[in-house]
Amino acid sequence: MSERPLKVALLGCGVVGSEVARLMTTTADDLGARIGARVELAGIAVRRLGRARDLPVDPALFTSDAHELVSRPDVDVVVEVIGGIEPARSLILAAMENGASIVTANKALLAEHGAQLHAAAEKHGVDLYYEAAVAGAIPLLRPLRESLVGDKVKRVLGIVNGTTNFILDRMDSTGAGFDEALDEATELGYAEADPTADVEGFDAAAKAAILASLAFHTKVTAADVYREGITQVSASDVASAREMGSVVKLLAICEVDEARESVTARVHPAMLPRTHPLAGVREAYNAVFVESEAAGRLMFYGPGAGGTPTASAVLGDLVAVCRNKVNGGRAPAVSAYADLRVSAMGEARTRYHISLDVDDKAGVLAQVALIFAQQDVSIQTVRQSGRGEDARLVVATHVATDAALSGTVERLRALPTVRAVASVMRVEGE
Amino acid sequence: MSERPLKVALLGCGVVGSEVARLMTTTADDLGARIGARVELAGIAVRRLGRARDLPVDPALFTSDAHELVSRPDVDVVVEVIGGIEPARSLILAAMENGASIVTANKALLAEHGAQLHAAAEKHGVDLYYEAAVAGAIPLLRPLRESLVGDKVKRVLGIVNGTTNFILDRMDSTGAGFDEALDEATELGYAEADPTADVEGFDAAAKAAILASLAFHTKVTAADVYREGITQVSASDVASAREMGSVVKLLAICEVDEARESVTARVHPAMLPRTHPLAGVREAYNAVFVESEAAGRLMFYGPGAGGTPTASAVLGDLVAVCRNKVNGGRAPAVSAYADLRVSAMGEARTRYHISLDVDDKAGVLAQVALIFAQQDVSIQTVRQSGRGEDARLVVATHVATDAALSGTVERLRALPTVRAVASVMRVEGE
Repeated sequence: MSERPLKVALLGCGVVGSEVARLMTTTADDLGARIGARVELAGIAVRRLGRARDLPVDPALFTSDAHELVSRPDVDVVVEVIGGIEPARSLILAAMENGASIVTANKALLAEHGAQLHAAAEKHGVDLYYEAAVAGAIPLLRPLRESLVGDKVKRVLGIVNGTTNFILDRMDSTGAGFDEALDEATELGYAEADPTADVEGFDAAAKAAILASLAFHTKVTAADVYREGITQVSASDVASAREMGSVVKLLAICEVDEARESVTARVHPAMLPRTHPLAGVREAYNAVFVESEAAGRLMFYGPGAGGTPTASAVLGDLVAVCRNKVNGGRAPAVSAYADLRVSAMGEARTRYHISLDVDDKAGVLAQVALIFAQQDVSIQTVRQSGRGEDARLVVATHVATDAALSGTVERLRALPTVRAVASVMRVEGE
Repeated sequence: MSERPLKVALLGCGVVGSEVARLMTTTADDLGARIGARVELAGIAVRRLGRARDLPVDPALFTSDAHELVSRPDVDVVVEVIGGIEPARSLILAAMENGASIVTANKALLAEHGAQLHAAAEKHGVDLYYEAAVAGAIPLLRPLRESLVGDKVKRVLGIVNGTTNFILDRMDSTGAGFDEALDEATELGYAEADPTADVEGFDAAAKAAILASLAFHTKVTAADVYREGITQVSASDVASAREMGSVVKLLAICEVDEARESVTARVHPAMLPRTHPLAGVREAYNAVFVESEAAGRLMFYGPGAGGTPTASAVLGDLVAVCRNKVNGGRAPAVSAYADLRVSAMGEARTRYHISLDVDDKAGVLAQVALIFAQQDVSIQTVRQSGRGEDARLVVATHVATDAALSGTVERLRALPTVRAVASVMRVEGE
């Protein structure tokens, strides 16, 4: 075993950080054996000193000066679990300039500034790993970066937010509406006091940007991702899905076109057939489905969040960067060498499920069908039901561009005989 | 990009080897961009020259002298896809002595001589990767070696043989018996002419040895794995499972005991609840379920076999070892540092489902229950059915050691009122 221990600076001691500190201390011998050198905490940066913390670490490790900590000459690795853009970004850049490798769980930062951070890591000859940023404990980013790297990924389809999956799962199993299911999620600790980041899809969009960047070797930021959360999903949408043998999921979908010239990344609710492997992902679990040219269809499944599972992913990366420090190796550079065009949502190819409240009179179906034909959107199925006030027309389309499909919905909305567009939902996975 | 191209020697040009050669040639530009250097085939060793091969490679690359090929001074990486113990082992050792890193798909070799090969790789400062040896295209071994390495794996439960999963899946969906389902598998190309290695569990046992070695940092060879194939699984067993809301799967199970002092590795058919994530693995797909202390329950799913998916795993490893050659890095050493004791099957803790044909008279249940009590095996459920010749007693036990459970079966068999032990199957996943 190497004589000099490796020094690790930990930034943040919240839910994840405290678990990282705990595991580093209680499993120090195992980590040392697997790395080939002992690993020691150089310091733990927190916002406020003096808080009582139930951790088996030396209290003298705590500091409120994160910048001083990452600049110490003997720090080999910096683990950033603060979150948010600043001060995390500045601290990470300072750490890299100081020659430290980086392990982070910061999806917002990676989704926004991933390319810049990778370039800085390359320039300073250090590693940058962030498995914990997407899908918690599930080894997914490293397989994408290092196992599937000999293949061409065509599509990544994922349930990457546990809060929204829990809510939708509850709506499916109990018939509850969104508000009721959100309340239950909050009570059980699956949703935060302010659930906006989760239910509006911001969290999933950041993860989609990271997945698309790695899968397609192209720079995709959070701003490039079409984002729609689950706040407009109704109990009635969920019931319609069930009638079709489907389930409503919030999906992150990253695709490259046939000619591999452009990519799309989008997050939105969608109906998924119950036979799809992702449909069985319950509660707060995550799962990501990857389609590659040679490997075919792979699925990765596991806990998407939580202090301990996320800390597991952080520790996995920590061992990797520490091994590199010991062996003199380096992670492969992540580059956007393919540099594909990122298309707008309008170009994404998908299917729609449209529920219309219509006038109960002859000729409505013909009018509706004509509009679809004029938009060049092919209809797969139509179902007419109800009489009088309850007359309803439900259409499921074939694949078309999102622009053509949403254009169709707007024209339907304008039809005098269409009293309301009761619901519109995309359909995926068939 | 580095100026000197990396030279790769390919040993074997069968189903997998020809696909590796094809992908290396058709995706050479992408591979070069991802590795940071061009990669070229130095030669392709085959048993018989002169066979017509439909490959976009220079025919001059083919050679029948594999030993000469791996000894060439300019060979950086050797890809071994011949299979079997010899000459693969000797060629790999010679290649490592020559300073070449190794990528292989050879499960039999790794299950038998993994420890020796890793020691040789360590000694010669080269990499040894074998993702394709277990679960085909699914990135599983690298996540175990490099992502979950900061965690403690408790249990690995897998469907790792596509042939037997296809057969059992057919038996479940059509009610067919084993022979009929095997015939169908052979017709469709899911079973080989001689299916012994698959249906007798040898293939799965080799994979279990590899998984247990990596998961528990301990030397586990194929000989250490308890092995039972699916040839004794009847249509009636499958029907019984369905009645219990379960499905019969051939499982590879690797576990460490609570105190982390000993490990078991076993392959045998078992009943699995249909709600278990592994129960939904259909046809020839594979899936491996990993339980870790921090990460929790992870599942990896995908195509377990086939030329193209397996080649994808080989290429993923190839990129990794090539990147190390370019950067001067090395894969982490795989060591059996934990050196845990490998327990015999008798110590494995499991549950049994036992079907007895019994005499239709009073007191039989009491006699049977007494035997269980004397063996210290607790009964979970008992079901009595049928009259006269059809009198049947079905018992599902709680968890006990396999020795206690099999001892119980032997004593039941000896009871005069038990006409026959109709079936015995282990129960897992609850």
